[in-house]
Amino acid sequence: MKLLRVGTAGAERPALLDQDGTLRDLSGLVTDIDGALLADEAALERVRAAAASGELPVVDSAGLRTGPPVARIGKIVCIGLNYHDHARETGADIPSEPIIFFKAPDTVVGPDDTVLVPRKSVKTDWEVELAVVIGRTARYLDSREEALAHVAGYAVSHDVSEREFQIERGGQWDKGKNCETFNPLGPWLVTADEVPDPQALSLTLSVNGERKQNGTTAEQIFPVAEVVRYVSQFMTLYPGDVINTGTPAGVALGQPEPKPYLRAGDVVELEIAGLGRQRQELKDA
Amino acid sequence: MKLLRVGTAGAERPALLDQDGTLRDLSGLVTDIDGALLADEAALERVRAAAASGELPVVDSAGLRTGPPVARIGKIVCIGLNYHDHARETGADIPSEPIIFFKAPDTVVGPDDTVLVPRKSVKTDWEVELAVVIGRTARYLDSREEALAHVAGYAVSHDVSEREFQIERGGQWDKGKNCETFNPLGPWLVTADEVPDPQALSLTLSVNGERKQNGTTAEQIFPVAEVVRYVSQFMTLYPGDVINTGTPAGVALGQPEPKPYLRAGDVVELEIAGLGRQRQELKDA
Repeated sequence: MKLLRVGTAGAERPALLDQDGTLRDLSGLVTDIDGALLADEAALERVRAAAASGELPVVDSAGLRTGPPVARIGKIVCIGLNYHDHARETGADIPSEPIIFFKAPDTVVGPDDTVLVPRKSVKTDWEVELAVVIGRTARYLDSREEALAHVAGYAVSHDVSEREFQIERGGQWDKGKNCETFNPLGPWLVTADEVPDPQALSLTLSVNGERKQNGTTAEQIFPVAEVVRYVSQFMTLYPGDVINTGTPAGVALGQPEPKPYLRAGDVVELEIAGLGRQRQELKDA
Repeated sequence: MKLLRVGTAGAERPALLDQDGTLRDLSGLVTDIDGALLADEAALERVRAAAASGELPVVDSAGLRTGPPVARIGKIVCIGLNYHDHARETGADIPSEPIIFFKAPDTVVGPDDTVLVPRKSVKTDWEVELAVVIGRTARYLDSREEALAHVAGYAVSHDVSEREFQIERGGQWDKGKNCETFNPLGPWLVTADEVPDPQALSLTLSVNGERKQNGTTAEQIFPVAEVVRYVSQFMTLYPGDVINTGTPAGVALGQPEPKPYLRAGDVVELEIAGLGRQRQELKDA
């Protein structure tokens, strides 16, 4: 299923994109798309049956905003340098184990919402990423197989990053990862049953119509199953938590000088095959 | 005011410790103690008036658990190496600007709840800290004075840390800061009007009755007002967000070998003068 949330920011209602591409209202069936729903297999089964019946109310999508596909995200765990090609372009060593940093859930916006260039930013950068959304509490998982059973679904995520804040301002990466609007998410949460192989997804990103990233999750150093298993050794993952699994090559940081960092007026378009597209215009904060 | 939340985990109700030390029920007046309440000056004024009237129902505190004093925390921003004496003991340079890392809100437990030593942990460490709780949305603040006006209050925070995970496992500190139960908070949220100088608070911590940390917030490299102002340049702070402002000297990491890291059965006791005490027993995860 393709689950989504539509409406004005903070007042989104749950919806579903059916197999014909028709937008259907779920608000008569579930209160929202969040960790509680994703952990509730019976409720998800009811949604699935209602979708199959073809009887869910149609929503007029004209002019309708799409919000982030998951509400009340508990935490966003991010994996750094998780693509062979991206590690090479940044001059970093291949990590021997996953690098973990965080984005705060309040950085999440809809897939087509405005992204703000922070004040005094000179190095705002893009990163298309595969987001994993957790469906079952994951704690000290033993195997990769077990790990995948804890994944509710997948979404497109934009891990917007300010490189000066991240790398040159004394310390930890989180400083450049948590500016407001820095995590467009969606349009859809595609349930895991419709993503048979999360390591066979193509990811692309363009800036002002020019292709910058063109990767595949096959290049991930630590595949999704290993990421979930590994993270669960260090923290408990709860339904509705999100993992941004890293970005392929092609970010501004990896380009020759002068690096083409983002400025107000730029337009970024992202896509993961099967998971949908995002489009953001940059503005000044 | 000393605001707190009492009852079983996940079902706490709001309460107040009055000037006589009597526990009073607030559940008839407010739904919970969270960002929404802290941003609502009229509601806080009603609580203040009710407390002054002496007519709030008394709660029998015998055997009653104290939970974390703030519900639905949005994010926990942590400041690293923010005490002169702690930077010295860890051999680190004095930071030229605040180091920022994160703890996830799901690490928060009550002040006397069990703390779990993570599986395969060999370096679980303690850190008594002054927590700042935000009361008004803070974004690109101009001055330290303005920053303090965005603080709702203060609390005792235990920034439990796994040093091997934090420092020796490839990358960012967050890996050792987010194990389950790693952020006991409370007992109280003491409103800012009762903490005239946040830079004049003594902090102590003992393990199994032996004093380990004995510091003062006067030793902070970046005082509370500067921390709030600074953080607001990189991310937006919302009501109910928490900032852990760093720990003074005396952590296990700073001791001679063999460093006395925590093990199951150990008891840690923390106190900040005027903000209350915590006591945790360590158990294996």
